[in-house]
Amino acid sequence: AIASAKLCSAGMFTLTSPSLSVHSLSHSGLSAAKLLKEKGLSPVVLEARDRVGGRTFTVRNEQTKYVDLGGAYIGPTQNRILRLAKEYGVETYKVNEEERLVHYVKGKSYPFRGSFPPMWNPFALMDYNNLWRKMDEMGSEIPREAPWRAPHAEEWDKMTMKQLFDKICWTNSARRFATLFVNVNVTSEPHEVSALWFLWYVKQCGGTMRIFSTTNGGQERKFVGGSSQISECMAKELGECVKMESPVYRIDQTGDMVEVETLNKETYRAKYVIVATAPGLNLKMHFNPELPPLRNQLIHRVPMGSVIKCMVYYRENFWRKKGKEGGRERGSMGSVIKYVMVVVPCRKKRICEIYSRVLGSEEALHPVHYEEKNWCEEEYSGGCYTAYFPPGILTQYGKVIRKPVGRLYFAGTETATEWSGYMEGAVQAGERAAREVRAFIIIIIIIHIWQTEPESKEVPPLPFVTTFWERNLPSVGGFINFLGVASVLSVATTAGLLAYKKGLLTRS
Amino acid sequence: AIASAKLCSAGMFTLTSPSLSVHSLSHSGLSAAKLLKEKGLSPVVLEARDRVGGRTFTVRNEQTKYVDLGGAYIGPTQNRILRLAKEYGVETYKVNEEERLVHYVKGKSYPFRGSFPPMWNPFALMDYNNLWRKMDEMGSEIPREAPWRAPHAEEWDKMTMKQLFDKICWTNSARRFATLFVNVNVTSEPHEVSALWFLWYVKQCGGTMRIFSTTNGGQERKFVGGSSQISECMAKELGECVKMESPVYRIDQTGDMVEVETLNKETYRAKYVIVATAPGLNLKMHFNPELPPLRNQLIHRVPMGSVIKCMVYYRENFWRKKGKEGGRERGSMGSVIKYVMVVVPCRKKRICEIYSRVLGSEEALHPVHYEEKNWCEEEYSGGCYTAYFPPGILTQYGKVIRKPVGRLYFAGTETATEWSGYMEGAVQAGERAAREVRAFIIIIIIIHIWQTEPESKEVPPLPFVTTFWERNLPSVGGFINFLGVASVLSVATTAGLLAYKKGLLTRS
Repeated sequence: AIASAKLCSAGMFTLTSPSLSVHSLSHSGLSAAKLLKEKGLSPVVLEARDRVGGRTFTVRNEQTKYVDLGGAYIGPTQNRILRLAKEYGVETYKVNEEERLVHYVKGKSYPFRGSFPPMWNPFALMDYNNLWRKMDEMGSEIPREAPWRAPHAEEWDKMTMKQLFDKICWTNSARRFATLFVNVNVTSEPHEVSALWFLWYVKQCGGTMRIFSTTNGGQERKFVGGSSQISECMAKELGECVKMESPVYRIDQTGDMVEVETLNKETYRAKYVIVATAPGLNLKMHFNPELPPLRNQLIHRVPMGSVIKCMVYYRENFWRKKGKEGGRERGSMGSVIKYVMVVVPCRKKRICEIYSRVLGSEEALHPVHYEEKNWCEEEYSGGCYTAYFPPGILTQYGKVIRKPVGRLYFAGTETATEWSGYMEGAVQAGERAAREVRAFIIIIIIIHIWQTEPESKEVPPLPFVTTFWERNLPSVGGFINFLGVASVLSVATTAGLLAYKKGLLTRS
Repeated sequence: AIASAKLCSAGMFTLTSPSLSVHSLSHSGLSAAKLLKEKGLSPVVLEARDRVGGRTFTVRNEQTKYVDLGGAYIGPTQNRILRLAKEYGVETYKVNEEERLVHYVKGKSYPFRGSFPPMWNPFALMDYNNLWRKMDEMGSEIPREAPWRAPHAEEWDKMTMKQLFDKICWTNSARRFATLFVNVNVTSEPHEVSALWFLWYVKQCGGTMRIFSTTNGGQERKFVGGSSQISECMAKELGECVKMESPVYRIDQTGDMVEVETLNKETYRAKYVIVATAPGLNLKMHFNPELPPLRNQLIHRVPMGSVIKCMVYYRENFWRKKGKEGGRERGSMGSVIKYVMVVVPCRKKRICEIYSRVLGSEEALHPVHYEEKNWCEEEYSGGCYTAYFPPGILTQYGKVIRKPVGRLYFAGTETATEWSGYMEGAVQAGERAAREVRAFIIIIIIIHIWQTEPESKEVPPLPFVTTFWERNLPSVGGFINFLGVASVLSVATTAGLLAYKKGLLTRS
């Protein structure tokens, strides 16, 4: 949603939100409007689609009751979205981690508990441990509000994440899991993304453990009734001023008021506009005057991830009988979530075949229901979950990502500095943009624009306790160096002894 | 220019070209319309800007007479653009390579003749030679019409050009020049572009020598009077049907006719539409139905290069006195071309300071005239010269670059297979798209859609003759291996002799 702020000449304030609806966008635009309305102003929200929710999308039908085909998970430290949920009485439930997940490698299935599959090979164990430690260490150097100012920003931005993994990882097993880690978190490939950007992304979510964990992490909970409810409640509260099916194609700042035109031939006039789309979707609008060069370049360079969310439903949880858990879904019917990175015809059949292989059961081939959402084809999403930065872009163009352009302000989860890419980031960005606009109307102290959020009492974060071994286990490289020095010493000693014995060395 | 084909119910054919004008685009859309008109149909061209020419831009004023601030150069094997120039009587002149260029390294200036600066260090020489040879060798594996089918497509697409250079080059001098080679040819950085894409780009221009050379290469000639003339002549020939200042914001294919709406509130109806913008500028339009997923993803992933073209004019060619040539510009006033990759305030001053340092002359600080064009800020160009592919995109999304979508066909220099990125590619793409549209109306044999162009008689290409040494000089790596083997042999021999002498080895 693009939220555009409208200040009528009478001094009455409205926020128009012409829109390209995308989960955060919708969350972002609506939360901006909500804050402005609470401050006594009257915003207008322009939404491109025929629904609110953006990149969250809750489908309701008889077979599924409800199911989230877009953003779904929330967890501790996501205090803003938890505050909104509490306000609207939307409850959360803990995702079931009790049952086991399946790690499928080279044709074999290994059921396990917890977030990370277990390691038996000691080299792989050292290598894993070193990988997470190294990523968090590098992340700690990166300022969340200005990653381009990190001491090694230039160097890391010129590298893809694949290059970095090739440097850090010694074992194929760690490299494979590292690839999966990128795939799952940002729905793109390690060779596509800048190392600086990905390290920043993980850092601003609270580190590798927080972003990837179920319990105490980003996947701890889901909303009872689906995640779109938050947007729906905000839209309901805002009422009439939310205009659906109103994609904006033109923003004109040349006059006294900003003029915004929508495809359904409406024209809105506002004093300020908050554009709350993903940066790349700014391109759907024609600007007069043109955007500044750096922003014009930026918006062509930050594509959205590619993901199709598929859910398969079976008559019963047949995999439970075998002691394996294929998914984390609640509900009377078992369900399995699968992200498919490419567009494949006959997806349903293909996925069932994979499940059948992984779960080792014929029953996986006979689902009773199927739901999918291909985010790649959505014109007003461009993809999901979030925008990624290819190498070289963050350091050269990143700094304009939320820099206002005249009377345009920028929200959307991509402009956030905490949980950017998530619903939480969308709310942070929307509320910050609303405060920026207000700063121009009512004099508020600049320091209030960026507000921290008190910790949620219901969903408090726990510290991640690292063990002595996690902190001190050597990396494979370190271990080999140690072995090398040790063996050189012992070889030298042996050789010396031998030489001495053979009389080649003599005491002088 | 987006060319959209309009077939009235009476069977009369018109090509509308709603447009985002960009050099090739304009060349591409106009050449499509020209071909269709010649075949007896009546196309309409919709141009976004207030001028034709797109990414070519000839400025005329008293101080400069005329100057090309966009695409300017042409050379042998660019037979289509040469054919158009001949048709309209636009003459070309050879760029003066007689005078010397300056190679500026570590604070010292070295004047030289020819395309490549000379090498004195034998290692650097081997390294350079190996670099060009290697790039051309790799290019020879890549099909120009389907680079994603190259035997090593996946592997090379996961690499940036920087990674490839780091692998190939042994000397800093070669690495520096390799970086410059990417900067100059595609106005982006080696760490930003896919190796597969860049190797393809060089290959489809005829290889490293053809793309980079002045004489017998892509920079051999310029148009007397400027390059925009070609578009201007085509527009004149097409007459009334070229609509200026008509940016398209909506394309609707749901009805019998394709409906195209422009910002100036005109609606055009056509049977077919040729979209002749750079792929990324497809985003300026709202499509109904939405574009297919792969195209929707592609257009977010292919940004334009960043370039600002600056020209500084001096009272006299002061550098000639010193036996140095600062630029390749003709005309009564000397001129120096400089591409600045980033946006800098006070560009004029900064550039003059650089020239002063390079040319070693105070006079460089006192220009009499200055022209510049910042392509980064142009909403309907998105940048210049052409779109680049970041790592991973060409193999995953490249194959849909010119795949029709319903009644939409795609032109623009980015969709060409010979000199893509140049005016030549724009013409090839435009004429091919026009033939695709015609294939649906008049039955023409599919094989005629892609047409080769007879060689220009006026500007014939010469083969690049490689010397025995260029073909057989070892790479630095090869040379070191050779040295290594030789020295191991000689060390072993010496050691053996020594051991024998000391009595450690005995003949058994």
